[in-house]
Amino acid sequence: MSEALRVGLAGLGTVGGGVIRLLDANRELIARRAGRAIEVVAVSARDRYKDRGVDLTRFAWVDDTTALAQQADVDVVVELIGGSDGPALTLARSTLNAGKSFVTANKAMLAHHGYELATAAEAARVALKFEAAVAGGIPVIKGLREGAAANAIGRVYGILNGTCNFILSKMEAEGRDFAEILAEAQALGFAEADPSFDIDGVDAAHKLSILASIAFGTRPAFDTVAASGIRHLLGADIAEAAALGYRVRLLGLAEDGPDGLFQRVHAHLVPVDHPLAHVTGSLNAVVAEGNFVGRLLFQGAGAGDGPTASAVVADLIDIARGEYGPPYAMPAASLVAAATADSGERRGRAYLRFTVADRVGVLAEIAAAMRDAGVSIESLIQRGAMADGSVLVAIVTHEGPERSVAQALEKLRGSQSLVGQPLWMHILG
Amino acid sequence: MSEALRVGLAGLGTVGGGVIRLLDANRELIARRAGRAIEVVAVSARDRYKDRGVDLTRFAWVDDTTALAQQADVDVVVELIGGSDGPALTLARSTLNAGKSFVTANKAMLAHHGYELATAAEAARVALKFEAAVAGGIPVIKGLREGAAANAIGRVYGILNGTCNFILSKMEAEGRDFAEILAEAQALGFAEADPSFDIDGVDAAHKLSILASIAFGTRPAFDTVAASGIRHLLGADIAEAAALGYRVRLLGLAEDGPDGLFQRVHAHLVPVDHPLAHVTGSLNAVVAEGNFVGRLLFQGAGAGDGPTASAVVADLIDIARGEYGPPYAMPAASLVAAATADSGERRGRAYLRFTVADRVGVLAEIAAAMRDAGVSIESLIQRGAMADGSVLVAIVTHEGPERSVAQALEKLRGSQSLVGQPLWMHILG
Repeated sequence: MSEALRVGLAGLGTVGGGVIRLLDANRELIARRAGRAIEVVAVSARDRYKDRGVDLTRFAWVDDTTALAQQADVDVVVELIGGSDGPALTLARSTLNAGKSFVTANKAMLAHHGYELATAAEAARVALKFEAAVAGGIPVIKGLREGAAANAIGRVYGILNGTCNFILSKMEAEGRDFAEILAEAQALGFAEADPSFDIDGVDAAHKLSILASIAFGTRPAFDTVAASGIRHLLGADIAEAAALGYRVRLLGLAEDGPDGLFQRVHAHLVPVDHPLAHVTGSLNAVVAEGNFVGRLLFQGAGAGDGPTASAVVADLIDIARGEYGPPYAMPAASLVAAATADSGERRGRAYLRFTVADRVGVLAEIAAAMRDAGVSIESLIQRGAMADGSVLVAIVTHEGPERSVAQALEKLRGSQSLVGQPLWMHILG
Repeated sequence: MSEALRVGLAGLGTVGGGVIRLLDANRELIARRAGRAIEVVAVSARDRYKDRGVDLTRFAWVDDTTALAQQADVDVVVELIGGSDGPALTLARSTLNAGKSFVTANKAMLAHHGYELATAAEAARVALKFEAAVAGGIPVIKGLREGAAANAIGRVYGILNGTCNFILSKMEAEGRDFAEILAEAQALGFAEADPSFDIDGVDAAHKLSILASIAFGTRPAFDTVAASGIRHLLGADIAEAAALGYRVRLLGLAEDGPDGLFQRVHAHLVPVDHPLAHVTGSLNAVVAEGNFVGRLLFQGAGAGDGPTASAVVADLIDIARGEYGPPYAMPAASLVAAATADSGERRGRAYLRFTVADRVGVLAEIAAAMRDAGVSIESLIQRGAMADGSVLVAIVTHEGPERSVAQALEKLRGSQSLVGQPLWMHILG
């Protein structure tokens, strides 16, 4: 058996601890599979003396995280610090420049600096791997980069944020509004104290930009992801969707069309017979549609120390086997800087929900705005007044350009008839 | 860009034609992803002049298929002939012995000779790849061998035969019996004229033995798969299962336990909230349960020329990238010849259906056999007589050893009360 692959580990939070526990628990099995042992030799984190439930005394401690790359006995650096810039980025650059392979779970850094890092990794002929950055333990980076590599991908989409899916599942099961469930999830530790990265779609947008790059051979372009979240959803929206045969999911969706790359994170109505409609709780799932393979689905745990450690160590096993592969499925030099597609040109069906005052003429005003913008209404449901006296109007449109829907909503902006902002969800076609 | 990877293609049926069409359609994309072009240079099949809808004149024609391996300009041989032995096996051996990589979709050959071939490939330091052999276009071989490689796998199971799942879905949707649906599927070309490989579970058993080897580090052991199929299922079984909250799926399931490797292909009751319950039509899906990653699901098209070609070409891209990997996830020398676990020791819940004569004492006889064997009954449903006067009795047992159920059925063997064989399905726990 060859010499061990020696790992320097930066960041000892829950995932870092998980990686150490996994390498301990499955040590012998991993050595058989990788053809050589995989051993952590040095670690670095902010607080040396915090109790993490794992024995760190057997590893060299490196105070300055960015110096991990310079340790002579480190072959590969695993970065689990997080943050798009700062020490994580410094470490990534210094590792690749030192001619060592780099493994990370850092979706934000890859979304912002992935192209630069892929270029550096290729120049140094080392591996840059990040299976854990998207959908936790699910091997979807590998699935796209290698498993589906023979296909032109039409679109890639999925449930990329477990916190949102957990909240939506609970709203669905209990018929309650977003705000209540979020407060509960925070109390239970399922949601961050500042949950905006999750619930406003930023986390999913980071992941989507990575998937899109691999699927379409484009440079990661986080800035052009149109992202919104689930903050404004009511239990009633989920109930209306259910009555129409749909479930509500926050989807990241990317498509490469004639006018450029389209990337969106948005709440969608998903038909109940679509596999994503059955992905509940904190699970993640990704669908890729290829021109020969058809629709592939990858599903599993999108977060947590065990699943994320599983993905990190899978990358280490690849590296131990000598399988480096191009980070974004093709050499960085051939990744295209794609134009951004105009969402107004997209055709689709929409779910629109208005909270309105309970008085004469409101429905006529909404209907007129739709007509004037050329939006054709497939169905409209108005329910009786809620506790605060306001009334919900839910509309499903026929297929048409998104521009028209935007125009209709623009016409209604500032209307005295509306209580709060309208909600617009797309219907997955 | 490096020189092209030159492919010799043996077998020009639907999948062989699909591989040529795919390499034509996605030529440029594949070259970017693989870092080099992938080109078919020579082909071989039984009938040179059959119209296959693809232009073969640009390839060298090799009359003797086994001579493909000796073509000087062939770097890798793709075998799409089929059959566990005969020309496919001869070609596999001659290719690996010639020091060339070998790609195949041949599950039967791998189930029977996989260990020998993996040993030969490793000795020659070439690739042996077979993504297309299990679950068609779904990259589940890669998912297990690489994506889940950090995990000890507890069990692996899935829907491995699209023909059976198509028939079961149709039985479920239309409430009809197996025999009727099979006849229709054959008329439509969805099932083979001799469907026994599919419907008796042999095809799924081939695939399961490959998955089990990768998951558990055991030598492929097709002979110890306990396989049965769906031939004896009635529409009434599916209806009873549905009333109890289950759907019926033919599952291949493998587990590595303290007393050895357990491999079974059998009709199962799957809880409606399990993802496999929502896999309908001819789709395939595989679940792997890892000790860190939890439950992973891979789903997609399990057959057809496009999906199968997608998997074959994914293997070629791996080879073009220089990523060979151990065929069964670890060096062949470390694959263990596992003992076969005793199914009698397994604990689980069972669905038992008896077709009985409509007369006094029948139920008492069945109940007594259960009691005497120590089988505890959770629920029992007896419906009114069918057209032929016989009566169905469906039983769900509490969890217990399978040995007891087998004993109860043995006690009832030859009973004048029973019309035909009882049906035993396992309940997925």
